[in-house]
Amino acid sequence: MTLQLRTETDTLGTVTVPATAYYGAQTTRAINNFPISGQPISRFPDLIKSLAYIKWSAAKVNMRLGLLDRKKGEIICQVCDEIIKGDHLDQFPIDLIQGGAGTSTNMNMNEVIANRGLEIMGEKRGQYQALHPNDDVNMSQSTNDVYPTAVRLAILFTHERLVKSISVLCARFKEKGVEFKDIKKVGRTQLQDAVPMTLGEEFQAFASTLEQDISLIKQAVLLVQKVNLGGTAIGTGINAKPEYQKSIVEELSEATGLSLEQTPDKIAASWDMGAFVSISGALKRTAINLSKICNDLRLLSSGPRGGLHEINLPAMQPGSSIMPGKINPVIPEVANQTAFLVMGNDQIITLAAEAGQLQLNAMEPIIAFKILESMEFMSNAIHILAEKCVAGITANKNICLEFLESSTAMVTAMSQQIGYEKAAQLAKEIIQNDLSFSEALKKHKEINAEKFI
Amino acid sequence: MTLQLRTETDTLGTVTVPATAYYGAQTTRAINNFPISGQPISRFPDLIKSLAYIKWSAAKVNMRLGLLDRKKGEIICQVCDEIIKGDHLDQFPIDLIQGGAGTSTNMNMNEVIANRGLEIMGEKRGQYQALHPNDDVNMSQSTNDVYPTAVRLAILFTHERLVKSISVLCARFKEKGVEFKDIKKVGRTQLQDAVPMTLGEEFQAFASTLEQDISLIKQAVLLVQKVNLGGTAIGTGINAKPEYQKSIVEELSEATGLSLEQTPDKIAASWDMGAFVSISGALKRTAINLSKICNDLRLLSSGPRGGLHEINLPAMQPGSSIMPGKINPVIPEVANQTAFLVMGNDQIITLAAEAGQLQLNAMEPIIAFKILESMEFMSNAIHILAEKCVAGITANKNICLEFLESSTAMVTAMSQQIGYEKAAQLAKEIIQNDLSFSEALKKHKEINAEKFI
Amino acid sequence: MTLQLRTETDTLGTVTVPATAYYGAQTTRAINNFPISGQPISRFPDLIKSLAYIKWSAAKVNMRLGLLDRKKGEIICQVCDEIIKGDHLDQFPIDLIQGGAGTSTNMNMNEVIANRGLEIMGEKRGQYQALHPNDDVNMSQSTNDVYPTAVRLAILFTHERLVKSISVLCARFKEKGVEFKDIKKVGRTQLQDAVPMTLGEEFQAFASTLEQDISLIKQAVLLVQKVNLGGTAIGTGINAKPEYQKSIVEELSEATGLSLEQTPDKIAASWDMGAFVSISGALKRTAINLSKICNDLRLLSSGPRGGLHEINLPAMQPGSSIMPGKINPVIPEVANQTAFLVMGNDQIITLAAEAGQLQLNAMEPIIAFKILESMEFMSNAIHILAEKCVAGITANKNICLEFLESSTAMVTAMSQQIGYEKAAQLAKEIIQNDLSFSEALKKHKEINAEKFI
Amino acid sequence: MTLQLRTETDTLGTVTVPATAYYGAQTTRAINNFPISGQPISRFPDLIKSLAYIKWSAAKVNMRLGLLDRKKGEIICQVCDEIIKGDHLDQFPIDLIQGGAGTSTNMNMNEVIANRGLEIMGEKRGQYQALHPNDDVNMSQSTNDVYPTAVRLAILFTHERLVKSISVLCARFKEKGVEFKDIKKVGRTQLQDAVPMTLGEEFQAFASTLEQDISLIKQAVLLVQKVNLGGTAIGTGINAKPEYQKSIVEELSEATGLSLEQTPDKIAASWDMGAFVSISGALKRTAINLSKICNDLRLLSSGPRGGLHEINLPAMQPGSSIMPGKINPVIPEVANQTAFLVMGNDQIITLAAEAGQLQLNAMEPIIAFKILESMEFMSNAIHILAEKCVAGITANKNICLEFLESSTAMVTAMSQQIGYEKAAQLAKEIIQNDLSFSEALKKHKEINAEKFI
Repeated sequence: MTLQLRTETDTLGTVTVPATAYYGAQTTRAINNFPISGQPISRFPDLIKSLAYIKWSAAKVNMRLGLLDRKKGEIICQVCDEIIKGDHLDQFPIDLIQGGAGTSTNMNMNEVIANRGLEIMGEKRGQYQALHPNDDVNMSQSTNDVYPTAVRLAILFTHERLVKSISVLCARFKEKGVEFKDIKKVGRTQLQDAVPMTLGEEFQAFASTLEQDISLIKQAVLLVQKVNLGGTAIGTGINAKPEYQKSIVEELSEATGLSLEQTPDKIAASWDMGAFVSISGALKRTAINLSKICNDLRLLSSGPRGGLHEINLPAMQPGSSIMPGKINPVIPEVANQTAFLVMGNDQIITLAAEAGQLQLNAMEPIIAFKILESMEFMSNAIHILAEKCVAGITANKNICLEFLESSTAMVTAMSQQIGYEKAAQLAKEIIQNDLSFSEALKKHKEINAEKFI
Repeated sequence: MTLQLRTETDTLGTVTVPATAYYGAQTTRAINNFPISGQPISRFPDLIKSLAYIKWSAAKVNMRLGLLDRKKGEIICQVCDEIIKGDHLDQFPIDLIQGGAGTSTNMNMNEVIANRGLEIMGEKRGQYQALHPNDDVNMSQSTNDVYPTAVRLAILFTHERLVKSISVLCARFKEKGVEFKDIKKVGRTQLQDAVPMTLGEEFQAFASTLEQDISLIKQAVLLVQKVNLGGTAIGTGINAKPEYQKSIVEELSEATGLSLEQTPDKIAASWDMGAFVSISGALKRTAINLSKICNDLRLLSSGPRGGLHEINLPAMQPGSSIMPGKINPVIPEVANQTAFLVMGNDQIITLAAEAGQLQLNAMEPIIAFKILESMEFMSNAIHILAEKCVAGITANKNICLEFLESSTAMVTAMSQQIGYEKAAQLAKEIIQNDLSFSEALKKHKEINAEKFI
Repeated sequence: MTLQLRTETDTLGTVTVPATAYYGAQTTRAINNFPISGQPISRFPDLIKSLAYIKWSAAKVNMRLGLLDRKKGEIICQVCDEIIKGDHLDQFPIDLIQGGAGTSTNMNMNEVIANRGLEIMGEKRGQYQALHPNDDVNMSQSTNDVYPTAVRLAILFTHERLVKSISVLCARFKEKGVEFKDIKKVGRTQLQDAVPMTLGEEFQAFASTLEQDISLIKQAVLLVQKVNLGGTAIGTGINAKPEYQKSIVEELSEATGLSLEQTPDKIAASWDMGAFVSISGALKRTAINLSKICNDLRLLSSGPRGGLHEINLPAMQPGSSIMPGKINPVIPEVANQTAFLVMGNDQIITLAAEAGQLQLNAMEPIIAFKILESMEFMSNAIHILAEKCVAGITANKNICLEFLESSTAMVTAMSQQIGYEKAAQLAKEIIQNDLSFSEALKKHKEINAEKFI
Repeated sequence: MTLQLRTETDTLGTVTVPATAYYGAQTTRAINNFPISGQPISRFPDLIKSLAYIKWSAAKVNMRLGLLDRKKGEIICQVCDEIIKGDHLDQFPIDLIQGGAGTSTNMNMNEVIANRGLEIMGEKRGQYQALHPNDDVNMSQSTNDVYPTAVRLAILFTHERLVKSISVLCARFKEKGVEFKDIKKVGRTQLQDAVPMTLGEEFQAFASTLEQDISLIKQAVLLVQKVNLGGTAIGTGINAKPEYQKSIVEELSEATGLSLEQTPDKIAASWDMGAFVSISGALKRTAINLSKICNDLRLLSSGPRGGLHEINLPAMQPGSSIMPGKINPVIPEVANQTAFLVMGNDQIITLAAEAGQLQLNAMEPIIAFKILESMEFMSNAIHILAEKCVAGITANKNICLEFLESSTAMVTAMSQQIGYEKAAQLAKEIIQNDLSFSEALKKHKEINAEKFI
């Protein structure tokens, strides 16, 4: 069975395209030019949907201003509706890692809309006189305002799931905070026994930290509500009428239900990747906290005999191919690794953001890829951490108490009465003679023991 | 000449201390334990000052609550005043890279206050019965609330100079934006000629970006206004009276003139380095933009013959030991390198923040070091960039115009009239036949040229 | 159509598995536990193949030592042969980002071999008495020696394509080095005109650098020839007979044709990720050079009018959706982005490598993922850079020469005759009066001009 | 008291210099241009010494070739000898973070040699006709070959102390490996009890890993034995006679006793920072292992009651300002932080190395700074780790044994006899009924217990 082909011509010459494809010459060139990651742009449906919203909004404004033939415009909007619904995802096969600052992605969308439109109009694919990817679908636009805006919309759509995942994890930690509120234990600083606390306080603290992460992610995401749409090639708005520039963002806002506004300096916005850096920074912060918390969960559940074993994580799978009965903290481990990935992605984004030159940052595709990936993977990891791990954690109350009672944690409270130096002597005595705190107190009648029990 | 010595005893035994030193046994141990970087904690006077403010405030509250003998308290406050003024800096010699989560730094301050206080009281140094570093100076406190709070105060003090530096740089860029507002030039995307713009727009965009950086640094710094003072060892407030916990932050706020408040979950705050991560993230974002801008300045001033040479940077020093007459963009280059340092410091802070365990992050000293260093070095670099470079930039108006006129930048504007494909043909013709835009227009009588001139 | 299911029991209870799947209970648990990246372990066929080689070799040795029933052993080998050939890839669906230090990956292989073996034997899937995933297939092994060894083998297999890609790129640069060897141009330091060179020298230098990268990648990859197979759970070799430990690596060496040897300290090898860090470091070094070279290619081809334009890159696709006729350096741009990814992946590997604890590093799966990804993506990017870009580069000889002649590059050569200071005066004169070098010489009769032409 | 001043003139005009300074106009400009870090280049005496060796060698060759007046040459060599001995360090005050690709550092050396030489000759400082910084001292050289070569020499000198530090740490770990060779304990994977091992094996493994780090540092450092001296400005050797180019590296080799050779492609070597990247990568690898080992030491010594407490670290200082008797693992903590610094410095070096452009990398000063810093700080941290921590570690033999006996670590060995599934049941029984391994065996008469004791 041979693949049916059609021929298209762009400004560089002719290209052979699968006959039934909605995409055209430039998409085909890009497929061939960028065989890097094997991951197509359709891997992030939010990105495709966002692009379609922009094309829809541009067509509306162009029609309203009399720039775009109404029949063409309506067809464009109809196709965009299909894409927004989730249709045609397989028509966006270009690699996420691509040169050209997103031009290929933008042209992929322009070509799919044009050819699917032509099909609806009863025309043949590739016969762009009737509906042109550049002159009609891309009217008043440039990749350099369309693509960054699409990435911003995709972040706005995607971050909601992440925020929800973290919120659920917070809720689980808080529930455990309440459940464990009366379990006394030794607090540890620098891995050394310090002073008393409750297991509930320890879990509540995890929630407190993550709640601040949520609020900072939300704050950072506000930055991408400002878009440079209307700025076209370099922010000066060339080829876009002033009336279009004025109303396109409002149109897009209404279409998407997002609170968008035009960025004040569109020339700066064409190269400035700061908003993505800030968001990645907020994601990294969350990842750092997530990793620290998972480290703690693994430490607190270490053992069962040769470890702290103050808590039990739910057993998710046999832990070893060789060690029978071994159970490992696999869920925190996978969350740790996801956190490392997010921290490394921040590095990629840093490098790409710094590589902007003059009026554009050509490295935006890898930024888009990695920021959406970080959000998605971290959502996934946090979701399973909440539901497959934290929700099922149980406490070993007796172990907690035994550690506390055998430790010098109570001595600190005594230093107010007997002074730091004498208290230090007492602590030394406890450890060297292998006493418990109460045993030690009995030997020191001069200390008013009642206050410390 | 032999150094006079005195002997002190702490809970681990006796230590020999220089006789005239205000610091004591624990500081001496720390000096010996941490010979890593050779940079003492006094390298950041804001950190020392901040610690003194905390000791002053704690003494005030402890006196008010009747916990601390009034005479002792007044002496403590008197010494703190001296330190806040800038005295005794040489008494803080411990290395900035230190183990112990800041305990040595805190004890250094406690010892200096105690011994200088003893001196004022007419007592001998090291005779701590009269004024004790732990029982009196450190009363109601722990390193784990004092040190993080001091670092936060130091950031609050230090960031003001950074913000001012960036503001001045913005002002310089804006002045150039106005000065160059009528200089037409070719805008470039992906280093390829794109569409027309002005040199003024290019410089104004630098300012716009940096203004957003300022606002995000300020926003991030708000996070360190929340302090865990009163939480003592692990945030539970052990050894601090409830009344003390309630009023200490207000006292410190008034003493410093900073808007401080107590963090809601002091247990989380004892290990959560998130605020520092966020601030370092904001610094990194600024560094990324700074580096991109310096890259542009170096590119735009490249040549003088074999480069763009659209602008001239002030000549700061002969550029070469071998190439006579060569002038290099040394100021942007040093700003680039400082930006790289800030980005790498963010990495150090990330690693240290992730390394917290259970109730504390023992790696806070390196975080404090690197965040204060990033702020200071970036202030310095931005200051000289503003005053020694940007302020003196001049434009080569003719070169700007020649590039524009010989480029295809004007063709884009034509595509609305003649369509994308025909316009592309024209652009190709211009390049292949080495024409200027106006020459090309003359050959195409069918195009209404007036609209494009 | 409903999916037919079968039930399996492992040490944690019963699990429902698709009836026709070769994988079993533990794979199924892992699929459910780790829905993070959506990328299955089969994404790296070299990893699957490597695992099968290990199972094959272990079965051979176990049979030879009389530990494993010969009939079972032959079946295991038969299935391994199928997998090595490339069969059954779809039976390895577990996410690349997984907890459990690779146990799930190892058990996936054990289960597939057992069930496919059972099928061959005419038994039902899941009836493991006849052929057991742990007792038979995993005999004498632990995930902790099998998985790291498999990752090492996969790196050995994968790196060959990378080395070949870089070699081809070197060859292309050398060809251009020869082609351009007579094109004189100005060499630039700090983007300022410096001294004369040839375009051929510039391209040859790209090759020289990359050749050293190849040699360092090869050197680093030698480290993974040392494997800890035979060390089982923590390197002590528990449950593996001394005879097995002695001969398993030799068996594997012969089977794969790779030069493997057993690592001297298998206990260290169980947690030490140093070899992966070294390899990732070598990849990062290559990425840094790759990125620098791509930056240069983009800079040298900038223009066509408002840039250096000393060389032309092949036009790969129309460069803009709005700017007709614009051609962008899309291939170097995609290589830059891939280089950034490799540098960020190095960060992920650093974080994961540092996270080892006691006798194991549980974060090895993300290390394996990212190191194989870096190798693969960089191979891809370098391949297209060589064939779609460098191979087709042409030079603009006249532009090169004009820059040289109008620059002060020739002045340096004069400083030996007339001294640095006088030469500097001459350079200043050339620039300020807009002279060419030869015009300037004519004005200075006192200089013996012949020597410099 | 007013500072006496003298006036000098360079190609940019006149500069006021302290009258007694050996440095001159260009150094003074650089001091004013780069007030960034406050750390002068003299902070790395090895760098100053290396520069002096180069100047000495160049003078020798220039004299031998008759290019340099013998009297001038001898004076230059005499001053270089003084500097190599360690004199005049205070005359090198330029900031380590500097623009100009090292030109200021090179000129600082040229000026100091010239003025100190003039002094010896009985001439006035600044009267460079008698001995010129550029024409005489810098003869046949460029910053672009001198500075990179000096940085390489400095690395060669500095790395020896690092290698020695690590060797000592290895020796200490090996001693403990022997001392603890009979202490049985539970090995842990993923922080869960795994299988038996000895404490001696655990410590020996630390040594094994670090020994490989030493060998890889040495291997990487070999790369900087190749120098580009003789290549002058961009590697083409302009202004250096062929005879000079041929012999200068041999001269330098003999002078320093280092095995230097000329790099084959000096044009590539002028911009390629690969050798520094490789060395920093080797340092990072060591830092990763160092951090992991310190994490383990802190974990194994955790407690004393609520932790593993298998080992005791020497008590170095009181651990807390509030908690009497608390002792913290301050030495491993400071080593951890130093390791993080080295990892972050690698990031700075990565960014700077990628920022090379065309024939030079102008960011080399920050690379030199951070690579020398990483070596020095890590030497310091490893030295104190060896002597103040590891050397004094003692074992808690009974605790080690109790953990082992109460754990399921012995069960793994049984699975060969009774099969994986039955062994897993036994492990479960042990944990759920809180039995020790021997108690469990007693309940299972069917198991041949003798084999496992």
